[in-house]
Amino acid sequence: MARPHFSVFIGTSLDGFIARPDGGIDWLHAVEDPGEDYGFAAFFAGVDTLLVGRNTHQVALGFPEWPYAGKRVVVYSRRGGTATHGESFVAGPPAEVAARLLADGARKVYVDGGATISAFLAADLVDDLVVAILPVVLGDGIRLFQPPLPERGLVLEGSQAYPSGLVQLRYRRAAPPAAEARR
Amino acid sequence: MARPHFSVFIGTSLDGFIARPDGGIDWLHAVEDPGEDYGFAAFFAGVDTLLVGRNTHQVALGFPEWPYAGKRVVVYSRRGGTATHGESFVAGPPAEVAARLLADGARKVYVDGGATISAFLAADLVDDLVVAILPVVLGDGIRLFQPPLPERGLVLEGSQAYPSGLVQLRYRRAAPPAAEARR
Repeated sequence: MARPHFSVFIGTSLDGFIARPDGGIDWLHAVEDPGEDYGFAAFFAGVDTLLVGRNTHQVALGFPEWPYAGKRVVVYSRRGGTATHGESFVAGPPAEVAARLLADGARKVYVDGGATISAFLAADLVDDLVVAILPVVLGDGIRLFQPPLPERGLVLEGSQAYPSGLVQLRYRRAAPPAAEARR
Repeated sequence: MARPHFSVFIGTSLDGFIARPDGGIDWLHAVEDPGEDYGFAAFFAGVDTLLVGRNTHQVALGFPEWPYAGKRVVVYSRRGGTATHGESFVAGPPAEVAARLLADGARKVYVDGGATISAFLAADLVDDLVVAILPVVLGDGIRLFQPPLPERGLVLEGSQAYPSGLVQLRYRRAAPPAAEARR
């Protein structure tokens, strides 16, 4: 099926949380380093579209400046919403969303937010997954991988440890089993 | 407080599970490599005591050979149990268990099992934590980090990626805040 390329680029606590229960991401400051962006700018330059969940959209709206300037922004939410920066809103099965994104011109999509990432992982539509593990146990919060997800192998492309204690793990989607590929 | 040194050495799926919902660990075979033990033998040689949860104890009992031969084995379980290989059974708050282990001669303790590890993490008694991340999303199972845990920073000592796709992260306990150390 023709579809855009979907990438995840995210940080989690060692216990798998991407935000506090209330969405707070203040704990990410522990690895902030003025001279190190962990490859984010290069990654961000390579995507044309953001597909974000409702919570991630709300976080972005709270920033002093709109962080997604210059990119197509699509909010994945059954509730819809009001576009304040040219966002569009979509809902439905990930495969249908993928087809619609392609039709709208999306080629490289940055998927963000735990629920949205998990929905696209469940549909086996995530092509690249960069997970930065922070040196902290958060204890509770919003998970990156939200059960239930089907069991799925990944291919490790590489890893890198940084002086801040962050370790970045880079995976790509495993090729589907031959039986599936032949269908 | 005088106490033994507590170490964790464990493998998890990328989504944080150490076993399937039924305790199954067959999925660990994905990273089995006859020429690579990921440092386990050296680690195991350095401990004198195993402190394992009831489930981990049951898994060990199911192995063709008793895997903890030559080590003091203590099962952390409120239910007690029957010693078949010289095990002893303890319960109670981790700090009390630590004191009892020390009195019994334990100096280097290998803590294993999600509930037991989480109890000792919650009590801030884990000195070294080696977590091997396997290149698989399992989707469901028994978690390494079982909420609720208090927020806690760790110190990254290093990381290593292996050809199997496993990435080993090595952490040590962060020094307690000065206020706590003075108490």
